[in-house]
Amino acid sequence: MTSQLHADGTLHHLLTLEGLSRDLVEGLLARAAGFLRPAGTAPARSDALAGLTVANLFSEPSTRTRASFELAAKRLGADVVNLDVHLSSRVKGESMLDTVYTLAAMGIEVFVVRDAEAGVPQFVAESVGPGACVLSAGEAHLSHPTQGLLDALTVIRHRRRVDGCAIAIVGDIRHSRVARSTVQAFSTLGARDFRLVAPAELMPDPGEFPGCQRFTDMDAGLAGADVVMMLRIQKERMAETDIPDFDAYFARYGLSARRLKRARPDAIVMHPGPMNRGVEIAADVADGPQSVIREQVTNGVAVRMAVLEAVGLAIIRARGTA
Amino acid sequence: MTSQLHADGTLHHLLTLEGLSRDLVEGLLARAAGFLRPAGTAPARSDALAGLTVANLFSEPSTRTRASFELAAKRLGADVVNLDVHLSSRVKGESMLDTVYTLAAMGIEVFVVRDAEAGVPQFVAESVGPGACVLSAGEAHLSHPTQGLLDALTVIRHRRRVDGCAIAIVGDIRHSRVARSTVQAFSTLGARDFRLVAPAELMPDPGEFPGCQRFTDMDAGLAGADVVMMLRIQKERMAETDIPDFDAYFARYGLSARRLKRARPDAIVMHPGPMNRGVEIAADVADGPQSVIREQVTNGVAVRMAVLEAVGLAIIRARGTA
Amino acid sequence: MTSQLHADGTLHHLLTLEGLSRDLVEGLLARAAGFLRPAGTAPARSDALAGLTVANLFSEPSTRTRASFELAAKRLGADVVNLDVHLSSRVKGESMLDTVYTLAAMGIEVFVVRDAEAGVPQFVAESVGPGACVLSAGEAHLSHPTQGLLDALTVIRHRRRVDGCAIAIVGDIRHSRVARSTVQAFSTLGARDFRLVAPAELMPDPGEFPGCQRFTDMDAGLAGADVVMMLRIQKERMAETDIPDFDAYFARYGLSARRLKRARPDAIVMHPGPMNRGVEIAADVADGPQSVIREQVTNGVAVRMAVLEAVGLAIIRARGTA
Repeated sequence: MTSQLHADGTLHHLLTLEGLSRDLVEGLLARAAGFLRPAGTAPARSDALAGLTVANLFSEPSTRTRASFELAAKRLGADVVNLDVHLSSRVKGESMLDTVYTLAAMGIEVFVVRDAEAGVPQFVAESVGPGACVLSAGEAHLSHPTQGLLDALTVIRHRRRVDGCAIAIVGDIRHSRVARSTVQAFSTLGARDFRLVAPAELMPDPGEFPGCQRFTDMDAGLAGADVVMMLRIQKERMAETDIPDFDAYFARYGLSARRLKRARPDAIVMHPGPMNRGVEIAADVADGPQSVIREQVTNGVAVRMAVLEAVGLAIIRARGTA
Repeated sequence: MTSQLHADGTLHHLLTLEGLSRDLVEGLLARAAGFLRPAGTAPARSDALAGLTVANLFSEPSTRTRASFELAAKRLGADVVNLDVHLSSRVKGESMLDTVYTLAAMGIEVFVVRDAEAGVPQFVAESVGPGACVLSAGEAHLSHPTQGLLDALTVIRHRRRVDGCAIAIVGDIRHSRVARSTVQAFSTLGARDFRLVAPAELMPDPGEFPGCQRFTDMDAGLAGADVVMMLRIQKERMAETDIPDFDAYFARYGLSARRLKRARPDAIVMHPGPMNRGVEIAADVADGPQSVIREQVTNGVAVRMAVLEAVGLAIIRARGTA
Repeated sequence: MTSQLHADGTLHHLLTLEGLSRDLVEGLLARAAGFLRPAGTAPARSDALAGLTVANLFSEPSTRTRASFELAAKRLGADVVNLDVHLSSRVKGESMLDTVYTLAAMGIEVFVVRDAEAGVPQFVAESVGPGACVLSAGEAHLSHPTQGLLDALTVIRHRRRVDGCAIAIVGDIRHSRVARSTVQAFSTLGARDFRLVAPAELMPDPGEFPGCQRFTDMDAGLAGADVVMMLRIQKERMAETDIPDFDAYFARYGLSARRLKRARPDAIVMHPGPMNRGVEIAADVADGPQSVIREQVTNGVAVRMAVLEAVGLAIIRARGTA
C-alpha cells in the first residue's frame, strides 16, 4: 500500500485518516479554521494554487461533496475540471489505469476521487506518479476522510477540544464511511468515549470500531453525550432490520427533541447530510439551537481548502526543484 | 411572500417583473445597454463580481439560458458552478429546503433557479437568508423575468421606446412564461396596445392579461403592429386545439412574409427561441431584415449581466458593513 | 466549402488537415513544442486568450478529448463553457443552424465541435460568421485534425523528422478518423512510406489512402517500421470480419512484444487511446520502453494550445481593427 505521506512526513495523498499523526491532523484543522470567515463577510480566497489543475472524478453522484471540493479549489485559485469518468465501472483494472495515466499525462495534478468500490482511491494514488496526488471524496463504506476532518473541526469550534467528549453516533454504522472516518479523526485527537447506537443488523462487525461501546437502545447510548451524530438511513438498509417502516425507525432511532434531552444540555447535534427529516431526525431538532448541521457544511469547504492547499503546495514546491 | 426588494428599494431577488417600478426596470435596461458592444469587438467584461459565487440550478434542461447566465456571470468575474440539483423533484419541501441551506452554507451567494414547478424560486428566496439572492431563470408557465427584460431592451434598441408601440404576441400564450413576463416588462414601460393572438384553447384565462386585446384571427391581430413576437408551439399543446398538424398551424398562426405585411412596414420580428422554423415562423422571416431574433440572444447576456451586477454588488456592499 | 484559411493564409478554422501547407503545419507543431515542459515542472500558461470564450460542443461522449481541449483553453486564459448540445441529433439542419446562431450571438468565439455525423464541423464553420471559428474535435470517420498533429509532434520529438519514416498503422483503418488525419499530417510533412495493416473487411476503399501499401499480414506490414500506430478495435466492427473473438484478433493483429521485433529496434509504439489491452496491444508493449502513448496525450494538450492560440489571436487581432 502506497503511503499517504511524503518522505518528510507531510501529506501526499489523503485516502484515509487511519495512521495520520495527531500533529498532522491538528495542523490541517488549524489551517481550515483560518479559512473560516464571519457570516456575511466574503469567503476566504487566495491564489496559492494558481496554475494547479484539480479534477473531480465522481463515480457516485454527489452534488454537495463535488460542489464543496470545486468551490474549495476555485477559492484557492486552482483550475478545476469535472470529469464524467466512471473508474470502477470499467471491468478491467487496466482500463482504470489507462484513464489515470491519460489524465496525469494531461497535467492534472490533484485527483479528487469518489467511488463506491473499495480500493479505487488507493489504486489511483499508486498510479498517478510522484508529481500528482489523490484526495478521497468517499470510498465505498470505508472512508470519507474530509468528512471526518470537518466533523472534528465542528466539534472543536463548539467544545474547544475533542478529547474528553462523549460522542454518540446513531444509525446505519455498519455501512457508513462517515462513521468510520469520524471515529478515526476523533480518536486521533484523543477522544475515547464513543457510543455506537444502531439496530443489531446495522452494527459493524465485532472486530471493527475497537473500544467503542455499542447500544441498541438509543436512550442509553445518548445518556450524557456531548456530541450526537445522526446518520442517514436508507430504505434498503432498513429492510435488513426488523423495523417495518420509517415511522417505526423514527420511534426507535430518530432524534426527537424529547430524546435529545438524554444528552448533555449543551450537546451539539450533527448530521453529514442529506437528512431524512422525520426519519432519523426531527425537523425541529435539525433546525434547533443545538444543531450545527449547517456549520458542518461551511466547515467542509474550509477543511477541503486546507487539504487541497497542503497537497497542492507540496506539488508546486516539488516543481521548483525539478 | 418575500419581497424582491431591499429596504432601500434596490433589487434583492429577481423572481418576477410584477411590481417592479418603471425606474428600477429602466435602470436595469440602461445598465444592460452599457454592456452591449459593436459586432466584432470584444464582449464587455469587468471584475465587479470577483469573489462572488454564482450557482446555476436548472431543473429543466435549457442549454441556452444556462449558458447565457454562465457567460454573464463569468464576464463579471464571478465564480460559477453548475449544479445538477433537481429542486422540485424532491417530494418533500423540506428536502428542497436542506439543499438550499447546504448550498448557502458553502458560500453560494447567487442562486440562478429554473424550475417547471410554480413557487420554487420564491421558496428558495425565502430560504437562502439575507446574504444571498435568487434570480429566476424561468418558473413554470408563470415568469421568466430576464426574458421580459431582454425583450424590452431589444424593442428599445430598435424603436427607442416601448410606450406607444403596438405589440402582437402570437402562439401558445396560455402556457407561456415568456408572454407573461414580456407583457409585464412592456406594461411597466408604458405600453398599452397588446394583441394576444392564439387559438381559443391556447388563450389565457379571462382574468389574466387585463387590458390586452384578444384575436383568434392572426391577420386582424397583426394589423399595424410595431412588434410581432412569435412563441414556440409544442406538439402536445397543439393537440389541445382543433388544428390537426404543423402545416395547418403555420397556415393559421405561422408568420409568413405575406402575413408580416399586415404589420407596420418597419415592424420588428421577435422569438424567444428555440424556433420551429416552418411551424410558427417561416425561415425567410426568421432570417429576414425585420428579424431581431439574434439580437435578443445578445441582449439576453447583457440583461443578465445587469441583473447579476445589481444583486451581486448589493451582496458585496453588505459584506463590507458586516 | 468554406475555406479554413483567412485571406492572408493563416488558420481560421481547423476542420481537416487536408490542404494545409507544410509551413502552416510545421508552424503549429513548433508552437506546440514550445508549450511542452519537462516532467515535474509547471504546465505552460499564458493569458494570450484572456477575454475569449471557447465552447465545447461534443455530441459524442469523449471525456479525454473534451478535457484536453478544456485544459488547453484554460491554460491560455480563455473562458470555457461545456454545452450539452447535440447538433446532429436535431433532425433539421435549420435547428442546428439556430443553435449555432444563438451561441454566436452570446459571444462564443471558438466552437470546439465533435460529432458522429459527417459535415457538422464544416456546417458550423459556414454558419458562425467571420468573427468566430470552429475546431473539429473529431468528425465521423473522416477527420480528427488535432490527433494528426499530436501524432506528428510525437514522432518529431522521437525521430527528429517525419519524412523518411516508415509508418505502420494497424487495425480498423476503414472507420478511423485518426488514421485519415494522421496520414494527412505525416504526408504533409513529407512521409511517403505508409503501411496499412488490417483485415480485408476493415481496409479502406481502394480510392482512399493513395500511395499507401496495404497488408493483411501484420508481420509483413511491420517489417522495418519506424512507427507502429495501433488503432482501437470495436467489437461491432470485428463482427464484420471473419475473426471470431478478441483473442483471435490479438493473435492476428495485436501488437505483442514478439511481433514488435519485426519493426526497427528503435521503433516507437503509438495508440490514440482508449486502449483495449490484450486485444489490439499487449499490456507489456503499451507500458514498455518503446511506447510513447502517454506522451501522445501530453502532446495533445500542447497541440490544442497551439491551434487555439492561432485561431484565438486572429480573432482578438480582428477585434482591434473592427
